[in-house]
Amino acid sequence: MMNVYPFVAIVGQEMLKKSLILNVINPGLSGVLIRGDKGTAKSTAVRALADLLPEIAVVDGDPFQSDPADPKTMAPDVRARFAAGEDLPVRRRKVRVVELPISATEDRVVGTLDLERALKEGRKTIEPGLLASAHRGILYVDEVNLLDDHVVDVLLDSAAMGVNTVEREGISFSHAARFTLIGTMNPEEGELRPQLLDRFGLCVHVAGLNTPQERVEVVKRRAAFEENPESFAERWGEETAHLRDAVAAAIRLCPEVRASDEILLSIAERALKLGVDGHRADIVTLKAAKALAAWNGRDAVTLVDVDAAASLALAHRMRRRPFEDVLGPHAA
Amino acid sequence: MMNVYPFVAIVGQEMLKKSLILNVINPGLSGVLIRGDKGTAKSTAVRALADLLPEIAVVDGDPFQSDPADPKTMAPDVRARFAAGEDLPVRRRKVRVVELPISATEDRVVGTLDLERALKEGRKTIEPGLLASAHRGILYVDEVNLLDDHVVDVLLDSAAMGVNTVEREGISFSHAARFTLIGTMNPEEGELRPQLLDRFGLCVHVAGLNTPQERVEVVKRRAAFEENPESFAERWGEETAHLRDAVAAAIRLCPEVRASDEILLSIAERALKLGVDGHRADIVTLKAAKALAAWNGRDAVTLVDVDAAASLALAHRMRRRPFEDVLGPHAA
Amino acid sequence: MMNVYPFVAIVGQEMLKKSLILNVINPGLSGVLIRGDKGTAKSTAVRALADLLPEIAVVDGDPFQSDPADPKTMAPDVRARFAAGEDLPVRRRKVRVVELPISATEDRVVGTLDLERALKEGRKTIEPGLLASAHRGILYVDEVNLLDDHVVDVLLDSAAMGVNTVEREGISFSHAARFTLIGTMNPEEGELRPQLLDRFGLCVHVAGLNTPQERVEVVKRRAAFEENPESFAERWGEETAHLRDAVAAAIRLCPEVRASDEILLSIAERALKLGVDGHRADIVTLKAAKALAAWNGRDAVTLVDVDAAASLALAHRMRRRPFEDVLGPHAA
Amino acid sequence: MMNVYPFVAIVGQEMLKKSLILNVINPGLSGVLIRGDKGTAKSTAVRALADLLPEIAVVDGDPFQSDPADPKTMAPDVRARFAAGEDLPVRRRKVRVVELPISATEDRVVGTLDLERALKEGRKTIEPGLLASAHRGILYVDEVNLLDDHVVDVLLDSAAMGVNTVEREGISFSHAARFTLIGTMNPEEGELRPQLLDRFGLCVHVAGLNTPQERVEVVKRRAAFEENPESFAERWGEETAHLRDAVAAAIRLCPEVRASDEILLSIAERALKLGVDGHRADIVTLKAAKALAAWNGRDAVTLVDVDAAASLALAHRMRRRPFEDVLGPHAA
Amino acid sequence: MMNVYPFVAIVGQEMLKKSLILNVINPGLSGVLIRGDKGTAKSTAVRALADLLPEIAVVDGDPFQSDPADPKTMAPDVRARFAAGEDLPVRRRKVRVVELPISATEDRVVGTLDLERALKEGRKTIEPGLLASAHRGILYVDEVNLLDDHVVDVLLDSAAMGVNTVEREGISFSHAARFTLIGTMNPEEGELRPQLLDRFGLCVHVAGLNTPQERVEVVKRRAAFEENPESFAERWGEETAHLRDAVAAAIRLCPEVRASDEILLSIAERALKLGVDGHRADIVTLKAAKALAAWNGRDAVTLVDVDAAASLALAHRMRRRPFEDVLGPHAA
Amino acid sequence: MMNVYPFVAIVGQEMLKKSLILNVINPGLSGVLIRGDKGTAKSTAVRALADLLPEIAVVDGDPFQSDPADPKTMAPDVRARFAAGEDLPVRRRKVRVVELPISATEDRVVGTLDLERALKEGRKTIEPGLLASAHRGILYVDEVNLLDDHVVDVLLDSAAMGVNTVEREGISFSHAARFTLIGTMNPEEGELRPQLLDRFGLCVHVAGLNTPQERVEVVKRRAAFEENPESFAERWGEETAHLRDAVAAAIRLCPEVRASDEILLSIAERALKLGVDGHRADIVTLKAAKALAAWNGRDAVTLVDVDAAASLALAHRMRRRPFEDVLGPHAA
Repeated sequence: MMNVYPFVAIVGQEMLKKSLILNVINPGLSGVLIRGDKGTAKSTAVRALADLLPEIAVVDGDPFQSDPADPKTMAPDVRARFAAGEDLPVRRRKVRVVELPISATEDRVVGTLDLERALKEGRKTIEPGLLASAHRGILYVDEVNLLDDHVVDVLLDSAAMGVNTVEREGISFSHAARFTLIGTMNPEEGELRPQLLDRFGLCVHVAGLNTPQERVEVVKRRAAFEENPESFAERWGEETAHLRDAVAAAIRLCPEVRASDEILLSIAERALKLGVDGHRADIVTLKAAKALAAWNGRDAVTLVDVDAAASLALAHRMRRRPFEDVLGPHAA
Repeated sequence: MMNVYPFVAIVGQEMLKKSLILNVINPGLSGVLIRGDKGTAKSTAVRALADLLPEIAVVDGDPFQSDPADPKTMAPDVRARFAAGEDLPVRRRKVRVVELPISATEDRVVGTLDLERALKEGRKTIEPGLLASAHRGILYVDEVNLLDDHVVDVLLDSAAMGVNTVEREGISFSHAARFTLIGTMNPEEGELRPQLLDRFGLCVHVAGLNTPQERVEVVKRRAAFEENPESFAERWGEETAHLRDAVAAAIRLCPEVRASDEILLSIAERALKLGVDGHRADIVTLKAAKALAAWNGRDAVTLVDVDAAASLALAHRMRRRPFEDVLGPHAA
Repeated sequence: MMNVYPFVAIVGQEMLKKSLILNVINPGLSGVLIRGDKGTAKSTAVRALADLLPEIAVVDGDPFQSDPADPKTMAPDVRARFAAGEDLPVRRRKVRVVELPISATEDRVVGTLDLERALKEGRKTIEPGLLASAHRGILYVDEVNLLDDHVVDVLLDSAAMGVNTVEREGISFSHAARFTLIGTMNPEEGELRPQLLDRFGLCVHVAGLNTPQERVEVVKRRAAFEENPESFAERWGEETAHLRDAVAAAIRLCPEVRASDEILLSIAERALKLGVDGHRADIVTLKAAKALAAWNGRDAVTLVDVDAAASLALAHRMRRRPFEDVLGPHAA
Repeated sequence: MMNVYPFVAIVGQEMLKKSLILNVINPGLSGVLIRGDKGTAKSTAVRALADLLPEIAVVDGDPFQSDPADPKTMAPDVRARFAAGEDLPVRRRKVRVVELPISATEDRVVGTLDLERALKEGRKTIEPGLLASAHRGILYVDEVNLLDDHVVDVLLDSAAMGVNTVEREGISFSHAARFTLIGTMNPEEGELRPQLLDRFGLCVHVAGLNTPQERVEVVKRRAAFEENPESFAERWGEETAHLRDAVAAAIRLCPEVRASDEILLSIAERALKLGVDGHRADIVTLKAAKALAAWNGRDAVTLVDVDAAASLALAHRMRRRPFEDVLGPHAA
Repeated sequence: MMNVYPFVAIVGQEMLKKSLILNVINPGLSGVLIRGDKGTAKSTAVRALADLLPEIAVVDGDPFQSDPADPKTMAPDVRARFAAGEDLPVRRRKVRVVELPISATEDRVVGTLDLERALKEGRKTIEPGLLASAHRGILYVDEVNLLDDHVVDVLLDSAAMGVNTVEREGISFSHAARFTLIGTMNPEEGELRPQLLDRFGLCVHVAGLNTPQERVEVVKRRAAFEENPESFAERWGEETAHLRDAVAAAIRLCPEVRASDEILLSIAERALKLGVDGHRADIVTLKAAKALAAWNGRDAVTLVDVDAAASLALAHRMRRRPFEDVLGPHAA
Repeated sequence: MMNVYPFVAIVGQEMLKKSLILNVINPGLSGVLIRGDKGTAKSTAVRALADLLPEIAVVDGDPFQSDPADPKTMAPDVRARFAAGEDLPVRRRKVRVVELPISATEDRVVGTLDLERALKEGRKTIEPGLLASAHRGILYVDEVNLLDDHVVDVLLDSAAMGVNTVEREGISFSHAARFTLIGTMNPEEGELRPQLLDRFGLCVHVAGLNTPQERVEVVKRRAAFEENPESFAERWGEETAHLRDAVAAAIRLCPEVRASDEILLSIAERALKLGVDGHRADIVTLKAAKALAAWNGRDAVTLVDVDAAASLALAHRMRRRPFEDVLGPHAA
């Protein structure tokens, strides 16, 4: 409904932009947490991301975004049609960014069952929720640290099982719900529950720009955009097209990227030295490094990729040390 | 229903009056927070503002205030009629001030869906809420720091997305909801949540007048008004008309106002020196300075405009410093 | 339902009685807060006040107490009949004292909409609440500091806007609701929210009498009243009639009372010296002083009136100083 | 349903027994609060009181206990029949002791309106609550300090106004509700809200007996009662009859008892010396002293009566001093 | 549903077993609180008790366990049939142990009224709760200190009045509800409310056994029981039969047991010396001592019985002294 | 729905894997609590366990998993059919792992009764909950320390009684519900309630691996699994088959395993020395030792088995000592 500010027109904030692009290249990174002051480009960047997203194939008319190529994760009725040999109608569309407002009720997130119709018509009638819309896409939560506890529980269950279950008075309905979770937060207003923190593959700290010249540039571009969004978008059109092509190329290259044993050892040693919890850190670092390599057009991970990936994947998983010490230099 | 005290008859309180007028000149300033003691002219000034508001065009009969010139933000059924080529009926009316009482329920703010009728008649039947009424106008919250948390969440979601979503048992309905938010608060009764604070473009501190002569004048005018509101309004009629014309002229001039690079740099340096969060501060300062220039009949921003704008836009965005130190001299 | 103890038979407590009488003379004083120990004459005095109240004209049969002379504040259906040229039936009755019990629900205070009938019969069917009954009268809350927060919110909204809004599932109905708010409280059981405190025009402190002779008189009269309320009332009948006449005369005189500039200046200086918040204090002091002058049969305010008025209007509006220091001497 | 232990068979506890008898002699004392250890005779004494209660006349078949001699306090429909000249059927029955269990809901205490029937049959159908049953009788609350806050609010409203109001969705129904409130509490489990404390006319402290001989007597009588309640009651029958006659005589004499001015002065001085709040203390002391005089067969209050009355009426109304110091000697 | 471990096969824990047996011999002891570590034989012993319980006569088909010999405590409809001269059908069955799960709702404990049927069929239709099932039997609450406050209130009301009242929207139904209350608790997880503590006649502390030999015996018997519960029960059959006969004999003898005045004096002195609250302690000690005498086949209480009874009845009623000091030696 | 990572491909974490296998060998161990950092293999291991589970016989079509060989624990209607001599249809299927999401409502866990149908059709219509599905299987709760208190109560009741009761408005339905409870928790986010802790037979602490080589192996296998789960499973197929056979053999052998008196004494002495609560510890240690012996192909318990069993069964039952001290070395 609103005109979207172009991703490429965002001044500075390289770490933020990179972390978002890496998640587009490899959705297996399962999201990024953007920490930072109010009034920085956090929301702008996430909304702008829509421009860069690739297309996916979905079963046409299915509110659960079923993948025509993966029967195991299809919605129950789609799977039944597939099993019955029906030739499912397929539509290609862009990966979606679904916004989860902090005032959203659990019902809106999970979906609801219309019990009366279910009883009357003898079949489950589900009103899909935001988790159904976000399946195979991006779920964006602004001020994620202010989310209601019940909604956080639902996100965690869904992230853990890849499934969302709608229930009412004992009748239930399940569908696949896997998404890239992008959240922003202002640490002044409280921290995240540790489990939710751990669900974000990457974490980046964002601060206001600190040279007057950059700040002037921000204000100028914003004013130009507000005055005439269409012509502003046009002005940045070519650069946007280039970025989109680069992302598409990286998506194609990423599965081919390989990492040597030396690289893997380097990742493990880093995690051990920093005192990181568990193994998810190592796995995410490797995935981010591969996505970075692909982004740089290489089919092998280098130590430079590992350095950059570790700075995004490890800091929020360290035990008992303040974030700021570690994130400070990268954020600067 | 009540007789309104004329804006021009308010004694003193220049900063308060200026901050309100600037928001009328440029609604992009997105509101003002009025902090101050009880019993000052806070509510009086906001209600009096109605006299000075310009007219806008709305689709006649549409409870969602659709703009006949902007299909993207029309209410769904209006947009459908527009798309079908219907010649929409247009009515011009004043910009509205909608009051949000602190006892208002979330339902009253957001609106409700009549589910039974929706089911029976097969189409969504919405009872519009205060956010629908306030679209393209002013939403006024007296004692905004006492608002229920759920209602604050709804205001924040609406401010962030420009959209309000009504839902009930999984059925939902969305409409555009953009408004200038004006709030008053008495800091003795608790502070605002930081996010909500940040949503107010400007912030002004109001105190009781401190010369006996001014206080006598306040009492005299109030007594005269209460004795005979109509004749009181008449007495101030000419001055009101002048102010209204001046506001109208400024509204017309504002889009033409330009700011030099030197001005922009000065704004950025100020924000950096004061340690303000993010970039919204710079953008609001520029907008306020432009509105001030227009108010003064100039088509270029001067450093004097920046000074005045910064005093309204920056103080409530500074980190870790008490308000009083900064606001004190301006408020005096 | 109960026999009422005569106002004139209350022993001592001159400040309490005066503050109540002033509110009858000028309802614009908007009420009085009576602070004091349990078991003093607080409730007795308020209930006894009924005897002294003047008559007003109301539209007969209208549960919203519409004033036949003020179309702007009429209930919607009455206004419609008025607009249609109907000759509204008028009834004269005494100003009412409506009691708000502390166990009252928000529904009982605000009123309710009978939604089913509304839907079936196609028109709003409202069950008026206590605010409808109290319009143009006195709303009395015993132990006002124990009132439920939701009910306080409703009182504040109504006091601020002069309007009460009944709503249910998005359907709403508004009617005028202006009243003199009289509350009692025992400070041992907690203080008032500052906003609610500010809504009371006057504040008076009540303590038990401290000479044995007065206490004996209290007990004797109480015993006589309980033994035979009718004969007791008769015994005080003449004195009651005198007081009623004096009140009626003061009501007629009050609008004629004038205050010199010297008087106004004296009020403003007093407020500034005591560090009172805002300007409501000055305005209330002036009104109380005028009512006092009328009570004393004068058509001009004197400094003695100001002294007495200030002792009732200022103490509860001072910043950061304990009540007791200021109220002590007056209460003694 | 249970066999009741005879009042006269309670060992010791003279203050407790006296305070209960005084309330039977003069219901205007409005109750007694019994503070003390668990396992003392508190509940036993209250239940045993039933034996001593006088008869009253009620309108037969009326669940609201309407007094056929007092139209002002009749239930609405009874008053209507009375007004229509109907010869109301009268029944004499004992004053009742109604128990309020601490798990009682507000509905059970207040009563409910059957809205559906009310709508269907066009008249208010009320299901009377415990307050209706207790009207003109005794309301007994064991462990009164554990009562739910909502129920306490309802008791306070009813005690303050003498009226109980049942409401549901805006429809309401009121009936007279005046009762003697008897409560027990174990101070170890928390104190009473000050207002509720003040509603009890008298207060008595009860402790276990402290000679082995008395304790043996308690155990013996209890064992005899449990073994054969009927024969036990018979054994105490004569003593019970004597007490019942003595109470009846005192009830008749009480209204004739007079107090000299010297007596009244002595009461007032006592209250002032002890720093008691307000005047209710003086009034209750006088009433208790009169009841004591009547109990002793005298028609004039003596200073000895005042001494005994004051020990029951004043201690729980003193400010800022521990109960124990004052109650200790009397309770011993 | 589960196989029950035989009471006689429990290793050690003599105090626990004795306190349970005493309650079977004399239900007037009104229960026992079993305090102790997790994993001791607490639940096992209570469930095993079922084997030892005597038979009672009940009105066949009555869910309220009406006693055919006691019209006063019959359920209303049974009493009506009795009054109408019906020859009530009688059934003999064992005293029941009813378990109250900590997740039980108040409805499940109290029972519910089916209002719709009540209205339609014009008579009260009650769904009996656990209190109805437990009448005249044993109510067992595992982890009684974790019970919901509302359920505790209901238990206390029922224990105090011997009656349970089911109500819904003003319609109510009462039935007798007297039971022996047996509760277990682990003091690590919080103490009991003092009132509930006082409702248990006896209290016993249970700890794990502290010789390796006893512990091995526990493990061996448990393993044998789990392997083949039927043959295990058979192995202990004779011992169980002996115990059952001994209990039955004690039940018959108990009402004949007498206590001399010397014994009574000794009980009273003990209670006074220990600073026990009230008189319930003395009464319970006497009852327990009589049950012990009966258990030992004597028809007169000895000082040895008093010693043992006091150790079970007094410790949890002492004021301001830690349990452990007193219970320690007895529990060892 | 998801591809499951093979149990045998988990790197390291021997204690974790052993504790799970022991519970499969002897379900009487009643579960294991897995404490540890986030991102370790906790969930992976539990889900992988499904591969190793044996088959059981269930009554076909019965949602309550009735055992055709155990009439006492059959669901009511199945028992009725069995009693009527019906030849129940039997199906063999694998023991199930049922996941309990932390957002699950009490209804979903317990099941619900469809009251309307129950009333209309005259028979209880139950919608079985997770406890019905988990009967005779494994109930898995990820982040068990975050479970809602009401759900914990339900689990405890079910664990204590072996029965689950569904109720609604007084109608209730019970079915057997016995399960192995497996929970994971991150101690950083709060501890378990002591009772729930005690319900887990075993407890194991899991930490991240601490050699770079092992960490690399974890990452390599994970990457291989994500790239192609099917071929990964195939690669580990033989090893999985071996493990499954070993488990099946141990299940058969376990009931034959015997423990000498020396072994039993050693267990008891250990428990006494460590200051463990109650006797459940001894019993669980014995069962775990027997399962270990069976796992090692022996039919007699050795002291080595006791050592290993005690390290899993005793630490979480010790009083007042930090877990870490005891678990540290075993977890390393």
